[in-house]
Amino acid sequence: MMKGYRVAIIGATGLVGDRFIESLEELKFPVRELVLYASSLSRGAIRKFQGKDIIVRELTRAFDPVVDLALFSAGSKISLEYSPLFAGKGAWVIDNSSAFRRDEDKALVVPEINFETIRSSPSRIIANPNCSTIQLVMVLAALRSLAPLKRIVVSTYQSVTGAGREGLEALHDQRRGGTLQGPFEFPILDNLVPKIGKFDDPIYSEGEDGYTTEELKLIKETQKILEQPDLKVTATAVRVPVSVGHSESVNVEFEEAVELDRVHEVLRTYPGLVVREPNSPNFPTPLEARGRYEVFVGRIRRDYSRENCLNMWIVADNLVKGAAGNAVQIALKLVKVGLL
Amino acid sequence: MMKGYRVAIIGATGLVGDRFIESLEELKFPVRELVLYASSLSRGAIRKFQGKDIIVRELTRAFDPVVDLALFSAGSKISLEYSPLFAGKGAWVIDNSSAFRRDEDKALVVPEINFETIRSSPSRIIANPNCSTIQLVMVLAALRSLAPLKRIVVSTYQSVTGAGREGLEALHDQRRGGTLQGPFEFPILDNLVPKIGKFDDPIYSEGEDGYTTEELKLIKETQKILEQPDLKVTATAVRVPVSVGHSESVNVEFEEAVELDRVHEVLRTYPGLVVREPNSPNFPTPLEARGRYEVFVGRIRRDYSRENCLNMWIVADNLVKGAAGNAVQIALKLVKVGLL
Repeated sequence: MMKGYRVAIIGATGLVGDRFIESLEELKFPVRELVLYASSLSRGAIRKFQGKDIIVRELTRAFDPVVDLALFSAGSKISLEYSPLFAGKGAWVIDNSSAFRRDEDKALVVPEINFETIRSSPSRIIANPNCSTIQLVMVLAALRSLAPLKRIVVSTYQSVTGAGREGLEALHDQRRGGTLQGPFEFPILDNLVPKIGKFDDPIYSEGEDGYTTEELKLIKETQKILEQPDLKVTATAVRVPVSVGHSESVNVEFEEAVELDRVHEVLRTYPGLVVREPNSPNFPTPLEARGRYEVFVGRIRRDYSRENCLNMWIVADNLVKGAAGNAVQIALKLVKVGLL
Repeated sequence: MMKGYRVAIIGATGLVGDRFIESLEELKFPVRELVLYASSLSRGAIRKFQGKDIIVRELTRAFDPVVDLALFSAGSKISLEYSPLFAGKGAWVIDNSSAFRRDEDKALVVPEINFETIRSSPSRIIANPNCSTIQLVMVLAALRSLAPLKRIVVSTYQSVTGAGREGLEALHDQRRGGTLQGPFEFPILDNLVPKIGKFDDPIYSEGEDGYTTEELKLIKETQKILEQPDLKVTATAVRVPVSVGHSESVNVEFEEAVELDRVHEVLRTYPGLVVREPNSPNFPTPLEARGRYEVFVGRIRRDYSRENCLNMWIVADNLVKGAAGNAVQIALKLVKVGLL
């Protein structure tokens, strides 16, 4: 039997916070004690874990940061302030915000791909990648075993839960005839919003004018995780009126020719991927991906407009593999390899 | 004053049929008499035109095909059977089905782009392009004045009205908690369906395995309208839970460098386009495009992953510019140039 660990969740009442709790249960992470933190607004809220009620505490400087594992999803500001305190007391921190993703001394981890980068990282803070990045790199990491990747063109179809509980509430309210705008600049019911994040975000932009934060994250995190800083990636990120599940239409160009049979084979055998053979009705949808830890890929076909190119359609649950599930998978692997 | 014309609408009770009537009114097409045809199921239905009730007739072989203009949107089978009868009696036929679009002797017309091809066509049957094609070629036709087009990568976000009244009813029923499937293979509420039409449709496929009818239409109709049969185009077509308005994420590669200022200028000055300058919140959405005859283009930016490439976002009302509106614009131009 593995021993149990003391785990803290910071941002416990958000959508990802809820999912952290579910993923700890579903993946049977050995928890000895679970401490839930949130802002003062959520103090006293109750969450169930393994059949027991846990009262949510307010995160303040007076907290006790001595845990073995801290899972953060409370925004970059909270991560920047509090995660070094947990890490300083010996905890492993897995942070779902974008605060540390681009830091050279922090590992940005999808466990199927680059878990080993944790060993060479000087920090005990591990960054969890952006939701839309994780599902893309899962497929790209498998594909690059066939031939070097040359260029990726991505268009995303991202659900409202990518914008947290406020995004979900806005969609639900609008469905009931309400006008709650939530985090979106335009109605999201019966509509699409081709802007996720800010335009020309100074943290990410580096002269790539006209892109949104989400698009730049997708580009730069993909390059970092695949350890190909010069990989050519371009992206258009779009919010769609779907509750859960992000989808991506992806055009992949290789440096060399690849065989479709081999494409299916490497995707089928890659851990964490579910591959759909071509044609009806065998393609993944966000409804199907709900609650799943796998990344689904289908509609794989040659792009006849250019040599060595494929089109495909990639779907995953943005709260599970795109966020909390990936983080708990990292934690489990830390246990498995003896780092935790 | 222009004289008035006898106009027939075939498929008068469908969504595009309704839109034909509205567009004849909105664009002030000079109608002397309007005859509405539909299947036996709709016989006796009533539609208002210019304040008067018109009773829908059943289209049978006993009908009187003597009109000046026949607007068809009743599916390919009806178009193949009946449009030659109307044309044979001297009518101009504008057909919204895919029956004639690939015929070499039929013009496939977006009036801003290639109206003149009607003059060289031996047929009085004019094909109206597919909805997703029209909004794409409007932008491409403007852009190619800057530099030759090399390759286009399109991902679509297509509304349920592209699947007709049944598509709309399915979405509405599902929003009310119902399970009406309509024309979709999976639920469309809270979901995406990356399949529009059939896989490997023998009419369109020509060995391009794995594509849907809609994707192949988009590719081949674009090539025909732009008169560039070798233009490289690849497409992924996706149904989204939006009532009205199709959107497209488009990557355009040119043969040569283009200046962004010039891109904006040629788009701004092209008839029928509304161009949005970059950045917040200046991007088009399907809600905004509803009921409009223009094609909206925004999020225009350099693609830093490859030389001479741009990304952009194109939106139009699929029932107006994508169908009925384009057809009535063609009819008006027939009048204007004296062909009708």
